[in-house]
Amino acid sequence: MQSIRDGPRWMLRLDDGQDLFRALADFARTEKLRASVVVSGIGMLRAGEVGYWDGQQYQPRQIEPAHEMVSLHGSIAEVEGAPSVHLHVGLSGPDHRSIAGHLLRGTVGVLAEIYGEEFEGHVFGRPLNESLGLRTLDLDPGPTG
Amino acid sequence: MQSIRDGPRWMLRLDDGQDLFRALADFARTEKLRASVVVSGIGMLRAGEVGYWDGQQYQPRQIEPAHEMVSLHGSIAEVEGAPSVHLHVGLSGPDHRSIAGHLLRGTVGVLAEIYGEEFEGHVFGRPLNESLGLRTLDLDPGPTG
Amino acid sequence: MQSIRDGPRWMLRLDDGQDLFRALADFARTEKLRASVVVSGIGMLRAGEVGYWDGQQYQPRQIEPAHEMVSLHGSIAEVEGAPSVHLHVGLSGPDHRSIAGHLLRGTVGVLAEIYGEEFEGHVFGRPLNESLGLRTLDLDPGPTG
Repeated sequence: MQSIRDGPRWMLRLDDGQDLFRALADFARTEKLRASVVVSGIGMLRAGEVGYWDGQQYQPRQIEPAHEMVSLHGSIAEVEGAPSVHLHVGLSGPDHRSIAGHLLRGTVGVLAEIYGEEFEGHVFGRPLNESLGLRTLDLDPGPTG
Repeated sequence: MQSIRDGPRWMLRLDDGQDLFRALADFARTEKLRASVVVSGIGMLRAGEVGYWDGQQYQPRQIEPAHEMVSLHGSIAEVEGAPSVHLHVGLSGPDHRSIAGHLLRGTVGVLAEIYGEEFEGHVFGRPLNESLGLRTLDLDPGPTG
Repeated sequence: MQSIRDGPRWMLRLDDGQDLFRALADFARTEKLRASVVVSGIGMLRAGEVGYWDGQQYQPRQIEPAHEMVSLHGSIAEVEGAPSVHLHVGLSGPDHRSIAGHLLRGTVGVLAEIYGEEFEGHVFGRPLNESLGLRTLDLDPGPTG
């Protein structure tokens, strides 16, 4: 794994076998990211799961075999002092057709190149929206998170 | 709806039921965006339409039911003093397969997180290219737009 | 073709018929980009080829007819003094279904709008990883590249 932090801009190169969520959360803790956008990401996923929100729950689909990761977008907020990472992913497998969705879990294959931007001086929250049953991004949650 | 503007960088959180084009155009007017890139976007669309340009026209496809929005990219230019928003979108439905294309219209479901960058001091145009029958981005249209 | 360079941020509008890799490499040489992220890209491809890495080689698929380009992400590094461009792409054809993958070659149709960011003062490398048989991004290759 390698990383660059240049003011609001950051970049990660993740290596084969790394857990995508853990790597981003660890980096967020180290760099004190509290209001970041995951702007761009490519590479491969050797395993993982995507979900489709049916209004009640995420309908899951396993990612197998390894898939090219063609897009990765999302946000890093803070929930109870810990990073909260939300990602959507676009993938393609051996038939080159794309499957995509909310990323439930993902393990890097070969490598991943991920680029993001931090809104310095801001803190994003992700409070539970009880009517939806989902945590949703709050760009300005105030001091109580 | 929430927004952040930090120099060239901006972010929107749109809410369920908002029209994506209207929300971006309204934000562009308020923030005087005249040369922006829509860099990243995720969330859901509860309804909408994607198009494939066949050389003559956009062949449309309805988005139904609600789809995960896995990517959103485009540009905000200025045409006759008003924001001109051009978007391409990647989506996935209950079978996790991706449909995608030029976004003709879109209504947010649950929420959308959209990130962009403005080239401050620039004005993008989108003049009609008469041979193509399409408006195409002009990074430097000059004072007559 | 048009371009903007504003500190770390750059944008290209490519025109019908341009080779995507050649255009990005030429721009990288002109602007002395040595450590860039291709953050966002849309438009059309009139021809090209996407690949799926099966662990040994890229399994190719021709892009035909012209496809909407809904996402473009990647990196520009330097190998032996020349730009090394790595791109993943999301596309959609007349049936609006998405095909995607590692971009092996691509010719712009109608136009392409591409946005990127340079880590100024950095140099990305892309050395051959002999165990993988692939060149992989190195964010800090050191003076020997």
